[in-house]
Amino acid sequence: MQAEPRTAESRDDERERAPFPHKHLLGIEGLTRRHVETILDTAEAMRGISDRRIKKVQTLRGRMVVNAFFENSTRTRISFEVAEKRLSADSVNIQVSGSAMAKGETLLDTLRNIEAMRPDMVVLRHWCSGAPHFLAHHLQSNVINAGDGNHEHPTQALLDAITIRRAKGRLDGLDVAICGDIAHSRVARSNAHLLRLFGSRVRVSGPGTMMPRGAAEALGVRVCRSLAEAVEGVDVVMMLRIQKERMGADMYPSDREYARQFGLTREVLRHAKRDAIVMHPGPMNRGLEIAPDVADGDRSVILDQVENGVAIRMAVLYLLSGASEVPAE
Amino acid sequence: MQAEPRTAESRDDERERAPFPHKHLLGIEGLTRRHVETILDTAEAMRGISDRRIKKVQTLRGRMVVNAFFENSTRTRISFEVAEKRLSADSVNIQVSGSAMAKGETLLDTLRNIEAMRPDMVVLRHWCSGAPHFLAHHLQSNVINAGDGNHEHPTQALLDAITIRRAKGRLDGLDVAICGDIAHSRVARSNAHLLRLFGSRVRVSGPGTMMPRGAAEALGVRVCRSLAEAVEGVDVVMMLRIQKERMGADMYPSDREYARQFGLTREVLRHAKRDAIVMHPGPMNRGLEIAPDVADGDRSVILDQVENGVAIRMAVLYLLSGASEVPAE
Amino acid sequence: MQAEPRTAESRDDERERAPFPHKHLLGIEGLTRRHVETILDTAEAMRGISDRRIKKVQTLRGRMVVNAFFENSTRTRISFEVAEKRLSADSVNIQVSGSAMAKGETLLDTLRNIEAMRPDMVVLRHWCSGAPHFLAHHLQSNVINAGDGNHEHPTQALLDAITIRRAKGRLDGLDVAICGDIAHSRVARSNAHLLRLFGSRVRVSGPGTMMPRGAAEALGVRVCRSLAEAVEGVDVVMMLRIQKERMGADMYPSDREYARQFGLTREVLRHAKRDAIVMHPGPMNRGLEIAPDVADGDRSVILDQVENGVAIRMAVLYLLSGASEVPAE
Repeated sequence: MQAEPRTAESRDDERERAPFPHKHLLGIEGLTRRHVETILDTAEAMRGISDRRIKKVQTLRGRMVVNAFFENSTRTRISFEVAEKRLSADSVNIQVSGSAMAKGETLLDTLRNIEAMRPDMVVLRHWCSGAPHFLAHHLQSNVINAGDGNHEHPTQALLDAITIRRAKGRLDGLDVAICGDIAHSRVARSNAHLLRLFGSRVRVSGPGTMMPRGAAEALGVRVCRSLAEAVEGVDVVMMLRIQKERMGADMYPSDREYARQFGLTREVLRHAKRDAIVMHPGPMNRGLEIAPDVADGDRSVILDQVENGVAIRMAVLYLLSGASEVPAE
Repeated sequence: MQAEPRTAESRDDERERAPFPHKHLLGIEGLTRRHVETILDTAEAMRGISDRRIKKVQTLRGRMVVNAFFENSTRTRISFEVAEKRLSADSVNIQVSGSAMAKGETLLDTLRNIEAMRPDMVVLRHWCSGAPHFLAHHLQSNVINAGDGNHEHPTQALLDAITIRRAKGRLDGLDVAICGDIAHSRVARSNAHLLRLFGSRVRVSGPGTMMPRGAAEALGVRVCRSLAEAVEGVDVVMMLRIQKERMGADMYPSDREYARQFGLTREVLRHAKRDAIVMHPGPMNRGLEIAPDVADGDRSVILDQVENGVAIRMAVLYLLSGASEVPAE
Repeated sequence: MQAEPRTAESRDDERERAPFPHKHLLGIEGLTRRHVETILDTAEAMRGISDRRIKKVQTLRGRMVVNAFFENSTRTRISFEVAEKRLSADSVNIQVSGSAMAKGETLLDTLRNIEAMRPDMVVLRHWCSGAPHFLAHHLQSNVINAGDGNHEHPTQALLDAITIRRAKGRLDGLDVAICGDIAHSRVARSNAHLLRLFGSRVRVSGPGTMMPRGAAEALGVRVCRSLAEAVEGVDVVMMLRIQKERMGADMYPSDREYARQFGLTREVLRHAKRDAIVMHPGPMNRGLEIAPDVADGDRSVILDQVENGVAIRMAVLYLLSGASEVPAE
């Protein structure tokens, strides 16, 4: 039973009337509050699928998704792959370390090659900021940004948003502290964009070397001088991973010093609201940016974030696909 | 057509009445003779599927298996993946070398993350003895140990057992020599446990540096001073791989010396029973622990072991899944 | 609905009557013009599948294809994997770098192990010339050569052939220039064999260190002293990739010197026929063997090659499988 092949035009028409009118998910910047809510509501429906005994629907059967990861990310790649399999899509994985690009091919040539194989969607993780936009500009496929350089990581912000909404009942009027390496964090950027859409207030905190110079205004965040100040009275504390493997020695004096000044402990967490939640995008450096008892404490929603990640990615795949079938086994 | 979601309790009830009452396969230690026989008998039925033109049944359709390999093992990973696909399960592969763990995440955090994505089963290979038990203690999923440190490798012992049973007609009352690096071999340990369950007698042989000190009694094996003594009159000769890539230079003097003293040649094999079979878990170092003409000789069942490996893994996946459907296309 | 299991004999009978009577695709050498045409015609039908909304047919459902790549090749591996998924086959990927072979297993043992898992087909890329022939000699599965050493790369030559046929309307009576490292290129060899089958004339050009000594006659190609001479009046210009990552420093003086003497520029292309097409197997070194404006120019069919690659691989998988079902969703 195959649907009539639809022309590009008729598909564009449908897109306009659809609840999510975008062809790609490149970043949170550019989305409206309504678009974000559509994704979150769809993700809630998707969560139900993972509770079934047979955690799989036929929605994207016959569609091919290329997961092109030009940067190591076991966690995000698996989350997308699980989401794709839950929707019955076919996954093809491309994992290219920096060194393999030394074969000399340009980024555009690599992406054009992927496109020529006619996938339905491309999930792209790239160390180069803007790579997914570049790809989307040149390709026919739906493009999902799975993290580009220091720029955006929209599915992370969306999974954070659904986790906050489930815990707090809303996304507006909240105070959120984001702490760590703000300047180089696509997670911080995407979250700041999303939270601002809903009128929540974001404060940031971290070592001087990791603060965005001048960009705080653009992001609409308030820079705090200490972790305690950032956390004071907030509803949500979001700790960022210190990417030790990427950092030069000059970013902070020592692990011990970092943990003492910028690590989230129970003492610091007392400054937040009594029901504040603790988040972390993972992988965690326990004892560095977050104390083990906080990571495992009853305020922590860190594993909910991981679980919600699959639902968000299912929702994004579903909405971009234009699949009209109700997800049912 | 979806089955009613069953509660955890009703599933536990079913498990008690099932022929294989375990939720996980963590090791041979702890299994009864009856449990092992159930797995072997199920594997015999699974072998038939691989003889069909369409070598695939729908038994595990919609189930997701994560193959998490924290140690290199192309062979075992592929064997599991082939088994999963024959049963129509969805496979997600995680391959993490030791260095990638340098991102600083703890084992438990990594495993909790996998769990949060709600797989149905996790196949775990880990360099750390006890990792699968740890995982099983914390997770909802079925856990299959695909080799943990120097501890156990239960599916290897089971595939060895079915290979012996097919060749010898039984598993009890046999004499079996296991030769090589006994002290560090999970294959030797799991096989010793299994063979003892059936009342077969195990002798071991190898360089002094590779013999288990004091553990021989615990394993119930007899330590022999020479390969010839170990092989004398046995029904089965099982050679272990010398893991040159992991060993320090001080474990044995030289390849030539090792081959001369502990390599299985036709001359040494003459000490065994006339119909003795020769086994090796692979990959083989031809000319080191086993002479090429023995590896390829008519006593060798080494490729049967590989073929039976797929059937054993299909059986284990099937039994742990609690799937009640008869495997049929 | 499962077909009666057919015996090996009845399958051999069918094979004889089939339009493509081979069990393996090991090289272009040994194929007839009629065989090549059968593959190309089948690939034309397969192209249609990639134009559908649901780009997938059930033709190889339940068949297992092992993609065993003993040499890095993201591009070819993905092309095969996409082709397999379009035909609903199950794919299992084995990627082994040279160093992992240092575990000491012989090639034959590795291949016998793969065979023992009873795949239906094996796609083999290997750095060793003749590896696929060796495998085919010992295995039951259908073997597809995805590139062996300096020997053959038949699916590349077939995708080049369909690209030429679509552009020029024919494969016979053409003049084709192949330029670059001819001596070490399996792409050049396979293309030379194929084009000669159809009575097209091949000229080659490149640095003296990269010219086949004495083999030109065997390949039936004409060695030209300059790129301009090779390109003069041809219908097709096929540039080969300079494999900088494999070459010693002594193969050519410098990138700049190579580009100047052997790089395809618009000036050089003027020597070809006005409607000559430009081909490249990828990945391209822009500015080295091919100028960017030529790679992106209106004569370039480089991305058509990639797209046709999927169709050719679908056709080969289909023809070797002996599947009789008409490809339809």
